Amino acid sequence: MSEPLPPLAAIPAGIASLADYEARAAAHMAADAWAYLQEGTGDGITLAENRKAFARLRLLPRILTDLRGGNTALDLLGRIHEAPLLLGPVAYQRLAHPEGELATVRAATALGTGMVVSTLSSFTLEEIADAARGAAQELGVAVPPLWFQLYLQEDRAFSAELIQRAEAAGYEAVMLTVDASIKRATLTLPPGVDAANLRGMPRLRQTAGAGGRILFGTPLADSAPGWSDLAWVRSQTSLPLLLKGVMAAPDGVEAIAQGVDALVVSNHGGRVLDGMPSALDVMPAIADATGGRVPLLMDGGVRRGTDMAKALALGASSVLLGRPQVHALAVAGLAGVAHMLHMLRAELELTMAQLGCPTPGDISADRLFTAPQ
Amino acid sequence: MSEPLPPLAAIPAGIASLADYEARAAAHMAADAWAYLQEGTGDGITLAENRKAFARLRLLPRILTDLRGGNTALDLLGRIHEAPLLLGPVAYQRLAHPEGELATVRAATALGTGMVVSTLSSFTLEEIADAARGAAQELGVAVPPLWFQLYLQEDRAFSAELIQRAEAAGYEAVMLTVDASIKRATLTLPPGVDAANLRGMPRLRQTAGAGGRILFGTPLADSAPGWSDLAWVRSQTSLPLLLKGVMAAPDGVEAIAQGVDALVVSNHGGRVLDGMPSALDVMPAIADATGGRVPLLMDGGVRRGTDMAKALALGASSVLLGRPQVHALAVAGLAGVAHMLHMLRAELELTMAQLGCPTPGDISADRLFTAPQ
Amino acid sequence: MSEPLPPLAAIPAGIASLADYEARAAAHMAADAWAYLQEGTGDGITLAENRKAFARLRLLPRILTDLRGGNTALDLLGRIHEAPLLLGPVAYQRLAHPEGELATVRAATALGTGMVVSTLSSFTLEEIADAARGAAQELGVAVPPLWFQLYLQEDRAFSAELIQRAEAAGYEAVMLTVDASIKRATLTLPPGVDAANLRGMPRLRQTAGAGGRILFGTPLADSAPGWSDLAWVRSQTSLPLLLKGVMAAPDGVEAIAQGVDALVVSNHGGRVLDGMPSALDVMPAIADATGGRVPLLMDGGVRRGTDMAKALALGASSVLLGRPQVHALAVAGLAGVAHMLHMLRAELELTMAQLGCPTPGDISADRLFTAPQ
Amino acid sequence: MSEPLPPLAAIPAGIASLADYEARAAAHMAADAWAYLQEGTGDGITLAENRKAFARLRLLPRILTDLRGGNTALDLLGRIHEAPLLLGPVAYQRLAHPEGELATVRAATALGTGMVVSTLSSFTLEEIADAARGAAQELGVAVPPLWFQLYLQEDRAFSAELIQRAEAAGYEAVMLTVDASIKRATLTLPPGVDAANLRGMPRLRQTAGAGGRILFGTPLADSAPGWSDLAWVRSQTSLPLLLKGVMAAPDGVEAIAQGVDALVVSNHGGRVLDGMPSALDVMPAIADATGGRVPLLMDGGVRRGTDMAKALALGASSVLLGRPQVHALAVAGLAGVAHMLHMLRAELELTMAQLGCPTPGDISADRLFTAPQ
Repeated sequence: MSEPLPPLAAIPAGIASLADYEARAAAHMAADAWAYLQEGTGDGITLAENRKAFARLRLLPRILTDLRGGNTALDLLGRIHEAPLLLGPVAYQRLAHPEGELATVRAATALGTGMVVSTLSSFTLEEIADAARGAAQELGVAVPPLWFQLYLQEDRAFSAELIQRAEAAGYEAVMLTVDASIKRATLTLPPGVDAANLRGMPRLRQTAGAGGRILFGTPLADSAPGWSDLAWVRSQTSLPLLLKGVMAAPDGVEAIAQGVDALVVSNHGGRVLDGMPSALDVMPAIADATGGRVPLLMDGGVRRGTDMAKALALGASSVLLGRPQVHALAVAGLAGVAHMLHMLRAELELTMAQLGCPTPGDISADRLFTAPQ
Repeated sequence: MSEPLPPLAAIPAGIASLADYEARAAAHMAADAWAYLQEGTGDGITLAENRKAFARLRLLPRILTDLRGGNTALDLLGRIHEAPLLLGPVAYQRLAHPEGELATVRAATALGTGMVVSTLSSFTLEEIADAARGAAQELGVAVPPLWFQLYLQEDRAFSAELIQRAEAAGYEAVMLTVDASIKRATLTLPPGVDAANLRGMPRLRQTAGAGGRILFGTPLADSAPGWSDLAWVRSQTSLPLLLKGVMAAPDGVEAIAQGVDALVVSNHGGRVLDGMPSALDVMPAIADATGGRVPLLMDGGVRRGTDMAKALALGASSVLLGRPQVHALAVAGLAGVAHMLHMLRAELELTMAQLGCPTPGDISADRLFTAPQ
Repeated sequence: MSEPLPPLAAIPAGIASLADYEARAAAHMAADAWAYLQEGTGDGITLAENRKAFARLRLLPRILTDLRGGNTALDLLGRIHEAPLLLGPVAYQRLAHPEGELATVRAATALGTGMVVSTLSSFTLEEIADAARGAAQELGVAVPPLWFQLYLQEDRAFSAELIQRAEAAGYEAVMLTVDASIKRATLTLPPGVDAANLRGMPRLRQTAGAGGRILFGTPLADSAPGWSDLAWVRSQTSLPLLLKGVMAAPDGVEAIAQGVDALVVSNHGGRVLDGMPSALDVMPAIADATGGRVPLLMDGGVRRGTDMAKALALGASSVLLGRPQVHALAVAGLAGVAHMLHMLRAELELTMAQLGCPTPGDISADRLFTAPQ
Repeated sequence: MSEPLPPLAAIPAGIASLADYEARAAAHMAADAWAYLQEGTGDGITLAENRKAFARLRLLPRILTDLRGGNTALDLLGRIHEAPLLLGPVAYQRLAHPEGELATVRAATALGTGMVVSTLSSFTLEEIADAARGAAQELGVAVPPLWFQLYLQEDRAFSAELIQRAEAAGYEAVMLTVDASIKRATLTLPPGVDAANLRGMPRLRQTAGAGGRILFGTPLADSAPGWSDLAWVRSQTSLPLLLKGVMAAPDGVEAIAQGVDALVVSNHGGRVLDGMPSALDVMPAIADATGGRVPLLMDGGVRRGTDMAKALALGASSVLLGRPQVHALAVAGLAGVAHMLHMLRAELELTMAQLGCPTPGDISADRLFTAPQ
């Protein structure tokens, strides 16, 4: 196996879409890290659905609309975001680039895009927050919204410590992920890449049977997070709390009843249970059941400004980007991520203009057209 | 990159459909001009939909119908057209052939087919009208309907001047295009090809941000045409006014209220917003909402006489042809365009005969069959 | 171009389905004759639909049914047919084999299968009837039902003469074809192949415009058969009269009112108007509108015993086979056609057994299952 | 043709799914045996549907569920099965491995998985039961549920003898298969492989016409099993009786009325009548008609734990595995089959955890999501 190419120092020519970064990224990553990044579980049905669901929807443009004063900003959990877009939590970004999450957060700062830092980041959450503040100062811009994504650890004390560290480092929200608590690990981390936030904590639980058992009856299943764990997390912080991994409407309703401030509709990039629908396809049911009581975010398959518009038309307040940030990071580091975010933002603005929607809130369901297919 | 082949002096053997011209045309055009002609925006979803929408529909033939007196003529905006077909506005036809729009209009004249001349034509609108009159005299036929397609210019004076020039040159209708006012340019024009009608006018607006902005907040968005611009155009001419780019029924209703004489349902050949439905698929909603108050024209994906019948069965009065005129022009100039128009007309007549429809007005929705697919 | 292989003297090894004959037949026919046989009009949408329509339907088997006394026979227009299957009219069979229709009719006789002889047969209708009688005598079996397919000729006297000749030669029904009266010829017949029944008659009409016209206004359109021509044919014979080419329910209803004894639902093998639905897909509407007043036959895409069952479940009394008879004829002459008919019959019996249907009349709509696809 | 590879002594690297065994199995089997194993009848429509039907369904996960006490066990016909999974009846397993059904049953014993032994097994039913008992003793585990699959023989005495032998050998249920009683044989058994249970009995009936007949009117059709044969089998044993091959709801209702204890919904792996729906697609109708009066089992296309969950969500109590047991057997014998069963079980547990279903009975229809496709 040949060595991966080093990341480029500048944005290469010929990149006009997020897909162009994806096409180039494989050459810049180790083969096993690339496979780990791109894989879907099972037969890849859900991974494919995440793109097909967007492709199925049709956008209905409006003409001759007054676009003066148009902008992409939105208020989300009390903070103005420049666009309905955040960098979602992606683990171990040093697998893609030596500067990993530090490069990503600097790009996010330059573009004013919020970022959700993973529990499994390969720099510590403090290092990442510091990098954002440094970049903001250097560029003379504001620090973008930084959120912390939490995987519950076996010992509540460690989970509590993570939350406290995030608060101390200036993170503005906690996003609890509950859809991947039972999942097989498929990658052995190379030297120099580790779960930086968890140094000194016990190893992550693995799928490993005890006494001939596979999953049920093992500690992995018996200590999987339950609703009481959500209540406990809620009690540990006064920051806004988001719950990531909601796909069924009743779970969303229950989570709101338990004090969650926002839901992230997600199938975890098609990585945990094959055969799940796309987040986009379940949006209407969840939007209907939750009736606007909290903002709905979603991820999975967003690659175009038109995708963002489709998600918003179905009830999302914002989308999260997963793999595309790693593609751009692997190809061209900070510059790549910033360019990628800029392309997506430009596509969104063109889309909004064509739809006759000067603000994100104008993108409603009447911009969707159900074509006979 | 090898030089493109020169256009042929005669119709090549083996051409039996519009698709055959398309297959040969690439060899006769410069690579970048070909890419510009053929491209769809984004992932090409809408470009593909334009053909798939026709392929999905089924035609139900009728037998033993009396076809005596049959003909394809129709009255459109007070003028008899020989068939429910016009050459739609296509910019810069010298990219395909040295004689560009002059060859096209001569072919249109020979076949008695109306032509819509683009604001961005590579000969002036006066030169094109003169060519039509010259050809008509030479062939002893009538000048076909010539319409002028208008892109609003930044300065109303220039727009008004274009309308006045078109009226003076004998154009019989103005078609205002509003669906591409915000779009990125993707082609650098080669030497010898320019926007002939705009010589001496300021450069076209480009998507170029000011002060870090992308689109919103820039002059491009702030001066995009609005409903008041339509009203202004309406006030500038007593010619019939068509509005091109309508896809949503409410926009069609509003345009009629503002005095538009006909609507052109169009997604601009899949070039401006990916994910739009085909014009064919939105025809029923627009026909239903506008209730026959004005004629509906459509373009996008028409390649067969059966496609024309499908469009008419869904409510169109006529179709417009886009890229196919350029394909034929590139391959064989005037002769190619004339041959292409003749093939399509012959296919239409055979289709009408099989459908038992002696006139275009007989092609109603009962000729469509919804098959289980 | 290499010479086609001669027909084989015996059934080749490895043939287990009608598709296997099709796969081998190209090598045994001249390239232009093969293209003419196989082609669909336009983009081949309807040609493909003819197979897809069968593939879409699901058969629901029944178990533990009493199959004693089972058989495939049916009464059709007063005559017992051994199976719900006839060889449909196919022109110019000498293009496939030197013995042409003579080989085909001998195979039909051996298998007890009815045959519809085309107006455009390459042996005369009398020669074909004689061959059937000769084969019947040699084999000690009955002459199978022979029907004559009529294309109306420009002069009624010639049409009347064809009908009289068919009656005199012992044909038992007349099948008037009305769906291809306006169609372009695409094959130049090679030496030794002609329309044997039409020797001495004026040339067939061609699509050829007069005075710059294409179709409308030419003799081809003006003399196309109408309902009065059907009435005239009805008056010329007391034989059962079938009308072939019905796809719309109102046409079927009208034809019955005019005294037609059976309808043949057909899109002419996808050869005349692209975009037509399959005959199978329109069967329910026609069956519903005609309410069992006359038998319904159908053709188009029948290649399997399961296809026959699907057609019968949707209301057909019998199916007709088109191209498959030519495939088998080209490969192995009389033996090929007989083998092909035997395979199809065997498949039908196995299908009926699995469906728990001891007779064709038992194959009703409850044997179809609508699966989510 | 090259010799097949011998079976491996251990599980090869790189196998992570049942499909991986399938991909490797061809190399370990004789070409004709492989073709016989894999084939679907006709055009393979039903064979493909068996997989497509699973792929069409979407699973809706639930979060934060309490998984303590979770397990896959279920009570089926009075016996606890460790998972909703049995090895279904597959004939002639020595075609895949010298140890044939003996290896399979030992693997089943090791994993505690029930096995249905075929009438056409290549070891005798007594040898197979002995092998299970031997393995159980060696491993210190219980003998898993063993059921006997019965094809009715031409002479009732032989059928009765088979049932009595099965009872004597300790089989716990009889599964009468009725969907393949009329089918063509397509494989000539190689030396050393025979229908061990039928030694000394008359040859199996073949599709062979008598007196020019094909199927109807032959002994094969006239003596096909009927409802009275089911009643007779019911009278011959007090063991639980399952009926395999039910696809239509009325047949299921009738079978229950006749005293059948469970239904096996099956299209026989797409081997008997092409065009049948998948068993999965007919489950809802059969579940609805039978209202839980007896357990429903199903087979056809199960390759994933997610497939098992989908079958259960639609009303199945358990699934049966067909071809996958042979794939694993051919590649790696006993070890392969055991590994295959373990993988499937692990996938099921992960699926149940993601669905928030601690027991098989929790997998109800609300875990299915109907996505727009």
